[in-house]
Amino acid sequence: MSDYDVIVLGGGPGGYIAAERLGHAKKNVLLIEGDSLGGTCLNVGCIPTKALLNAAKTYEHALHGAQLGVNAGDVTVDWTQMQKWKDQTVATLVGGVGAAEKKAGVTVVKGYGTFDGPGKVTVDGTTYTGEHVILATGSVPVMPPIPGAQDNPRVIDSTGMLSVEQIPSRLTVIGGGVIGLEFASLFAMLGSEVTVIEMLPEIAPFMDADVAAQLRKALAGVTFNLNCKVTAIDGGTVKFTTADGAENSVDSDEVLMAVGRRPAVQGWGAENSGLEVSGKGVVVDDRMRTNLPNVWAVGDVTGRSLLAHAAYRMGEIAVANILDAEAHRKGEVMRWNTIPWAVYTNPEAAGIGHTEASAKAAGINAKAVTVPGYLSGRFVAENGVKAPGAAKLVYDADTLQVLGLTVLGSYASEMIWGASVVLETELNVIDLRQVVFPHPTVSELIREAAWAVKA
Amino acid sequence: MSDYDVIVLGGGPGGYIAAERLGHAKKNVLLIEGDSLGGTCLNVGCIPTKALLNAAKTYEHALHGAQLGVNAGDVTVDWTQMQKWKDQTVATLVGGVGAAEKKAGVTVVKGYGTFDGPGKVTVDGTTYTGEHVILATGSVPVMPPIPGAQDNPRVIDSTGMLSVEQIPSRLTVIGGGVIGLEFASLFAMLGSEVTVIEMLPEIAPFMDADVAAQLRKALAGVTFNLNCKVTAIDGGTVKFTTADGAENSVDSDEVLMAVGRRPAVQGWGAENSGLEVSGKGVVVDDRMRTNLPNVWAVGDVTGRSLLAHAAYRMGEIAVANILDAEAHRKGEVMRWNTIPWAVYTNPEAAGIGHTEASAKAAGINAKAVTVPGYLSGRFVAENGVKAPGAAKLVYDADTLQVLGLTVLGSYASEMIWGASVVLETELNVIDLRQVVFPHPTVSELIREAAWAVKA
Repeated sequence: MSDYDVIVLGGGPGGYIAAERLGHAKKNVLLIEGDSLGGTCLNVGCIPTKALLNAAKTYEHALHGAQLGVNAGDVTVDWTQMQKWKDQTVATLVGGVGAAEKKAGVTVVKGYGTFDGPGKVTVDGTTYTGEHVILATGSVPVMPPIPGAQDNPRVIDSTGMLSVEQIPSRLTVIGGGVIGLEFASLFAMLGSEVTVIEMLPEIAPFMDADVAAQLRKALAGVTFNLNCKVTAIDGGTVKFTTADGAENSVDSDEVLMAVGRRPAVQGWGAENSGLEVSGKGVVVDDRMRTNLPNVWAVGDVTGRSLLAHAAYRMGEIAVANILDAEAHRKGEVMRWNTIPWAVYTNPEAAGIGHTEASAKAAGINAKAVTVPGYLSGRFVAENGVKAPGAAKLVYDADTLQVLGLTVLGSYASEMIWGASVVLETELNVIDLRQVVFPHPTVSELIREAAWAVKA
Repeated sequence: MSDYDVIVLGGGPGGYIAAERLGHAKKNVLLIEGDSLGGTCLNVGCIPTKALLNAAKTYEHALHGAQLGVNAGDVTVDWTQMQKWKDQTVATLVGGVGAAEKKAGVTVVKGYGTFDGPGKVTVDGTTYTGEHVILATGSVPVMPPIPGAQDNPRVIDSTGMLSVEQIPSRLTVIGGGVIGLEFASLFAMLGSEVTVIEMLPEIAPFMDADVAAQLRKALAGVTFNLNCKVTAIDGGTVKFTTADGAENSVDSDEVLMAVGRRPAVQGWGAENSGLEVSGKGVVVDDRMRTNLPNVWAVGDVTGRSLLAHAAYRMGEIAVANILDAEAHRKGEVMRWNTIPWAVYTNPEAAGIGHTEASAKAAGINAKAVTVPGYLSGRFVAENGVKAPGAAKLVYDADTLQVLGLTVLGSYASEMIWGASVVLETELNVIDLRQVVFPHPTVSELIREAAWAVKA
C-alpha cells in the first residue's frame, strides 16, 4: 500500500493544477514544493511582470492622454508603490493556490524533494510512496558563459530584474525573446533607455518574422541590435559583435540576461533514477508518460513548451490519463499545435499554431493574409489610425483549414483563446467567416483576415 | 435588363457589408445612403461611444493610478478635445467605408431612396432597377409619449448626448439597457452625478439577472431606480413612480431618453409595396428573404437583433444566398443563438447564447456555474482581488453542451468571440476544458467556469 495515490514533485502551474484536479477526483495527493506555491510563473514570472506591465501601461496612458482629452500634470512613477502592488498581487495569488489545494484535499509538504525512482520521493529525510509520481520541477534561467557575466552585480536575471531597487537609467537586455521583450517594453515605458541585443536576425522567433518586425518597430524607445553576439561584459558595459563583424558596446546601469530558460533536470534525482532525459528535458509522450512506469512529467521540465498554460494542460493530461487508462482515446492527449502564446509588451502580441514559415517548412501548401489594425473600428477609436496593429492568418491553400494566427495590438492576449477553439475544431476559413464577432472589437481583425483570403 | 445586379437601400453595417461582399463577388451593386456611410453604428452609435468610453477610462485610470504606483497631479477632462478625438475617429472610419466600397467597385448614390416594389428603388426622382433589392434602412430612437418630453431642450436622445456642449453636472438616464448603461458609465466616469430610471426589476434584461445585478453594483457613482416608471418631465425634473407606488423626482441638467430603438419601417415605401411588416419590423426568414421575390432585408430594420455585428452577418447571409441558391444548405443561415453582445461600461460585460433563465424557459434542463473574477491572475494583477468580475456558464445538464456565457470584467468584449466559436461548433463542457487558454488572461475565467461544472 502506498502512502499516496499520487505524489507531485513541484508546485508550479503544472504541478499545482495536477494536484488540484486529482484532489477533486478524490485521490489522495501529496504536493511537494520547496519554495512558494505557484512556481516561477506566479512568483517571478507571468504574474509579477503583468502587474508591473499594467502599471506601466497606466503610466503611459496618463502621460499621453492629451490627444484623447485627458490632461494630467506631473505624472510620475512611484517604483516602491509599484513594487508593493506587484508583491501584494503575488502574495494574494500564492495564498489562493494554497487555499485551492486545501479545498481539494491535497496535502502540501514544504521542502525540496528527491525522486528515488518509481513510487518514491524523499523530502528532508522522509520517504513518501505513491502509486504515481508526477515530476514538475520546472525550469531555471540560462546564464551563458559570457566573460564578465558571472559574479557581476550589474548582470541580473529576470527574477532580479523584477525587484531591482530603482528604475535603471540605461538598461541592456541580452535576448529578444518573450522575457527580454516584456522587460524591454516595461522599462522603456518607465523611462529607461533600453537596448536589446539579439543574436538572431529578428526578435521573437516563435512569431511570424514580418509581424515580429512590426512589433519591434512598435516598441518605441527600445534600440534593437539584431544579428549581434555578446562577447564580454565589463561592469555595465556590454561588448558585442555586429552582423558585419564590427565590435560595438553599450553602457548600462543594469544588464538583464534573458537568453532563455532550461528544464530543471538536475539536483532532484533524475540522474540516478533511470529516467530518460534528453538535451531538451525529461522525455514524455503525448500523454505525459516518461519511460518509467507510473512516472509522469509535466510543465517546463519536459522542455516541450515553457509556458504556464502549456504546463496546466500537461498537468491535466497526466491527471486524465492517471484517472482513466482510456483517456487518450477521448482526446486527452497534448496537441502541441493548439497552445497559444502571448507577449504583454505595449502593444501586445499573441498567436497560435503555425507561422507561415513553419507551415511551409512542414511541407504544407500554406498561404497567409495580413490585415492592418486600422480595419477595426475600436482599434482606431482607441489608438488612432496609425497605431501599430495587425492580424495574420495562415491557412492551408488546398483545404482552407486555419493553421495559425498572430495578432499584434491591444487585447491580443485576451482574444487568442478563440483561435485555440478554431484550431481544436479544425475550422476552415469559410467556417471562420460564419462566426459572429461582436462589434466594435479589435478581435474583428481576425474576421477581417478570414475575409481577406481569396476563397 | 436591370441597371444593377443588386440595389442596397441603406449604408449602415448591414447594407455596406452586403454591398462590399457583392462587389468583391463581381456583382454590379448600387448602394444608396442619404446620410454618412456607416449608419447609426459608425456615426452616432457603437463607434463614437467607444471613442468616448475609452477616453473616459483613460481619465479614470489616471485618477486612480496611485495604488499601482502611478501618480498624476491635477487630472482634468478636456471635453472639447475628447469630442474632437471622437469626431476624427468617426470621420476616419466613414472615409474607410467609402474607400472599401470604391475598392469593391460599388456605386454609391447619396440620397434617401424609396422602395417601389421588387427590383425598383427611386432616389431624388431617378428610378434604378436591380435584379435584387436589399433593404437596410436601420432603426431610430424611440421617443415615448411622456408628458413634457417632446420639445423639451433638456431631453435628448443618444445622438444628442454624444455631442452635448458640456459634461452635465447631473444627468438622468431613462432606460437601463445597453445605450443607457454605456452613457451612464461614461458620464459617471467624467464626473456627472448620474441617475438611471428603469421600468423593469433589473438593468440589462438580455443578461443573466444575477450578473446584471453585479454590473449594476459595479457601476460606481450611478444611482439606479429600478421598477420605476417615468410619468412626466418638467424642464430637467424627471418625475417617476417607484415600485411601491410612491411619487419621486430627480433634477437634472440633461435627460437622456434611452428606452430603445425601433426598426425604421416608415418613410421609404414599405407601406405601399406589399412588403410584410410586423410589429417587430420587416419580416424575414433565416436567409433574410422578405415575402417579396428577390427582396431581402438585413440589420435593424428586421427587428431581429439591433446589433451592428448581427447586421453584418445578416448582410453576409443575404449575399451568400443571392450568390448561391444552395448557400443555405452550406450553413449560410442566421443562427440567432450565436450572436454575442457587449456592453462597454466600466467594467465591461459581454455574453452570448442562453441565459440560465432563457434556457429554462425554453424547456432545457439547464444548469449554470458562476466563478468570480479573482480566479484570474491577470484580473487580480490589474484590478485587485476585490474588483467586480465574474464568468457565468450555462449548460445543458443532460448533454453538457454549452448554451451560453456571460463575462463581467475587463476585456470581456474582446474574449467573447471565442464563445461564438464554442456555440457554433456545439462544444460541451468537457470539450471546452480541453481548450488551452493563454496564461495569465482574464479569458481564463471561462476555463475556470468549465472546470467549476460538476462533471
